[in-house]
Amino acid sequence: MRVDLNCDMGESFGRYRIGADEALMPFITSANIACGYHAGDPLVMARTVRLAIEHGVGIGAHPGFPDLMGFGRRQMQLAPEEIENYILYQIGALAAFAKAAGTELAHVKPHGALYNMAAKDAELARAIVRGIARFSRELIVVCLAGSAMVEAAEEAGLRVAREGFADRAYNPDGTLRSRRLPGALIEDPKVAAERAIRMVRDGVVVAHTGEEIPLRVDTICVHGDTPTAVEIAKTIRRELEAAGIEVVPMGSFV
Amino acid sequence: MRVDLNCDMGESFGRYRIGADEALMPFITSANIACGYHAGDPLVMARTVRLAIEHGVGIGAHPGFPDLMGFGRRQMQLAPEEIENYILYQIGALAAFAKAAGTELAHVKPHGALYNMAAKDAELARAIVRGIARFSRELIVVCLAGSAMVEAAEEAGLRVAREGFADRAYNPDGTLRSRRLPGALIEDPKVAAERAIRMVRDGVVVAHTGEEIPLRVDTICVHGDTPTAVEIAKTIRRELEAAGIEVVPMGSFV
Amino acid sequence: MRVDLNCDMGESFGRYRIGADEALMPFITSANIACGYHAGDPLVMARTVRLAIEHGVGIGAHPGFPDLMGFGRRQMQLAPEEIENYILYQIGALAAFAKAAGTELAHVKPHGALYNMAAKDAELARAIVRGIARFSRELIVVCLAGSAMVEAAEEAGLRVAREGFADRAYNPDGTLRSRRLPGALIEDPKVAAERAIRMVRDGVVVAHTGEEIPLRVDTICVHGDTPTAVEIAKTIRRELEAAGIEVVPMGSFV
Amino acid sequence: MRVDLNCDMGESFGRYRIGADEALMPFITSANIACGYHAGDPLVMARTVRLAIEHGVGIGAHPGFPDLMGFGRRQMQLAPEEIENYILYQIGALAAFAKAAGTELAHVKPHGALYNMAAKDAELARAIVRGIARFSRELIVVCLAGSAMVEAAEEAGLRVAREGFADRAYNPDGTLRSRRLPGALIEDPKVAAERAIRMVRDGVVVAHTGEEIPLRVDTICVHGDTPTAVEIAKTIRRELEAAGIEVVPMGSFV
Repeated sequence: MRVDLNCDMGESFGRYRIGADEALMPFITSANIACGYHAGDPLVMARTVRLAIEHGVGIGAHPGFPDLMGFGRRQMQLAPEEIENYILYQIGALAAFAKAAGTELAHVKPHGALYNMAAKDAELARAIVRGIARFSRELIVVCLAGSAMVEAAEEAGLRVAREGFADRAYNPDGTLRSRRLPGALIEDPKVAAERAIRMVRDGVVVAHTGEEIPLRVDTICVHGDTPTAVEIAKTIRRELEAAGIEVVPMGSFV
Repeated sequence: MRVDLNCDMGESFGRYRIGADEALMPFITSANIACGYHAGDPLVMARTVRLAIEHGVGIGAHPGFPDLMGFGRRQMQLAPEEIENYILYQIGALAAFAKAAGTELAHVKPHGALYNMAAKDAELARAIVRGIARFSRELIVVCLAGSAMVEAAEEAGLRVAREGFADRAYNPDGTLRSRRLPGALIEDPKVAAERAIRMVRDGVVVAHTGEEIPLRVDTICVHGDTPTAVEIAKTIRRELEAAGIEVVPMGSFV
Repeated sequence: MRVDLNCDMGESFGRYRIGADEALMPFITSANIACGYHAGDPLVMARTVRLAIEHGVGIGAHPGFPDLMGFGRRQMQLAPEEIENYILYQIGALAAFAKAAGTELAHVKPHGALYNMAAKDAELARAIVRGIARFSRELIVVCLAGSAMVEAAEEAGLRVAREGFADRAYNPDGTLRSRRLPGALIEDPKVAAERAIRMVRDGVVVAHTGEEIPLRVDTICVHGDTPTAVEIAKTIRRELEAAGIEVVPMGSFV
Repeated sequence: MRVDLNCDMGESFGRYRIGADEALMPFITSANIACGYHAGDPLVMARTVRLAIEHGVGIGAHPGFPDLMGFGRRQMQLAPEEIENYILYQIGALAAFAKAAGTELAHVKPHGALYNMAAKDAELARAIVRGIARFSRELIVVCLAGSAMVEAAEEAGLRVAREGFADRAYNPDGTLRSRRLPGALIEDPKVAAERAIRMVRDGVVVAHTGEEIPLRVDTICVHGDTPTAVEIAKTIRRELEAAGIEVVPMGSFV
């Protein structure tokens, strides 16, 4: 039994600081690094890649919409050709920092609104996957478990890492409970860790309505921007290992 | 005897069109493609890379200052670390489009104010060269002949393509006559072609004051944004070949 | 009988030129000037305001989405509070150039995707109207005739200029025929002029299916970015006047 | 005896937070609010204007270079016409939020590299002043005491607020000691407050070399981005008042 722990990283910009990259890096195994569109800048990218390498953490691109003012969290309706090339651009930019540091990108995880839209929109999902595949067919695509992205990536013959959220409530149909509804966030690190273990060991998650639903995951997302982010990451990592689950970069088993 | 003809390309942005890329591509051997900072966007980059490949033209990155509003033509005082990483970012982004099209970048030519500042500023020149070398030591650095950039690139052990301007007047010290002074631009295609031939065949250029000055060049810049750009490019290409000079991508001989 | 002729203007940016502002200004009575979000920059704004004043043309703000790469033509899902404040920001910026030139803004017309979305989305329309009203209740709101924007502006007690399109085909329900369908654009200047006259004189437009539909308009949009833009503007202006219709700035009668 | 206390405010952007606006507002009398070029966005501007009004703090524009990635702290060489219109644009944008809140701008203080360059460059200073004057001749120009900006503003007949820095060391010639040198920053709130009092009461500041130099100030800058910012602001305010100096918005006495 093994799983990857991923976290969004490198989302600072110029003088603006966001996230707790240095404190979180010791507990995760894959870093999704922003590429300058929704967040991040070249200095931040260089620094974050170095930090990931120091901790033996896998490096992935975290491309988003070209919307710094909205942090990539606002839906934009772009043509598939735009999506595909924006993805390719951002992957290339980050890959240069990996190459300069003597390593390679392991995965790609779309950010924010792009990730959420692509989970449901097959055409968008395929455009993202085409952008990734044009760069390299070796890249792993991180996808919401059970989403249109999984289908698009598999259809294209790319490797997929199914992602689960230990600190988010699930609906009975396997989608995430909206952040606007009460109980959407699991704030207790112990509870989050327990949910992570059940996903990996038993392949299930308990929906907010009480029933167990099947959920096969390869990687668990750790949020980096909540006050308790470090505590949650630390606890999940420790409890997973205590349960006999190996926590390793997704590239080693996906 | 041989020389390369280079031109800045891919400087359109979104709905904005600039340059005559399609009309010029048949006459040049190296394209300097904008990377999204001073100009260019992912769709334009994809299109321009394809166009260059169709014409057997060498592909190079054309990184500039992050100043779309000023088209990269305004001086910015950045820290060496900023320069170095901005260069790396832009090269990486363009390299992804080359990779996706099954080819590789051959060269890098800084744009506008960055190019001009680096010709005189050794620290800046070295920061640019570091950014290039971190991506790949195989990349050729296009430098104003006789400038601080040549020194910085050679010092770092990178290959250098010395650049001359057929359609610009030179001062007796080998620098370019300021565009603000009369006679700075050579508008007659025949005269420009004749000057190009003398640079390549005789290693000299006639300064605006009349004396011959030594000038060894590997590549000649063709401007893409003047009304007569296509006519000049065509004439230079034809006259160079008529004079028995081979016009080939810089990568084949630098 | 009278009508206003409006045109989008000032959409150049930095070194990028778009539109035929100087050639069109003599034929129109209201200019919608871009405010730096989807297009335009401070120099372009200053120049365009001066040009409008020279021709006695009414000046209006043309705010859009913060999406220069997409020219404001791509849908973005923003919160009402974001819309409202982005509108206020852009109006203020343009108003400064009007003030500096000794005049005032007469109207506001949202641009591109924002205009189209607001025609159907009452919540978005109200957010736009709130942004306008916070700046000044004297501003006229240019709205697609029959749209949710008309309702939102009237509800708020602002003056409305109903807009018609002489060079676009209409559906039987009064909406514009999609640009993707054949016959969506009326390219013959004479036909466009004839349609403009019928809108003003008879309050009707002939749908592409043949039936007459009622359409009350205060201003007719002249597109600035087609090859025949100047010819169409000139013809519409001349034919309207030949038909005894006064062509005057909307501020004089709305 | 009276003086104004000013602070840069509203420099957050999108999801990025910077500064301690809410904690500082109670202690200052004038807020310099970023206008969206080097920092700030429409939501931040709206919120900051409201906050200033709640505390009876004077509202001023804080225009900077169009360089969000560098936070406006990097020199850019712009043409005077560019500077002038960028200033006008930014003032206008902020003025809209003031107008919407039922008030008016009182002053303008250029930001960062623009402020520093204009202190020494008369042509740049005059371009800034022209941009301000085109918006309104009632605006107070906040200038480094003794700088080229003071001359430019007075030459143009605008009101000037001479600015002093309580927490920065001065050179014997009245310029600020470079931040790169030791002792450039005064970190002890008590010492900073004492220096503020001497500036206002005695018209002098003690240079780092020990001699007293004359320095007439109308407003004292409180930095908002240091860990001790709130403590310093509070102490300066309290000590100034304890010394019998009235602390009031610059508009009431300049």
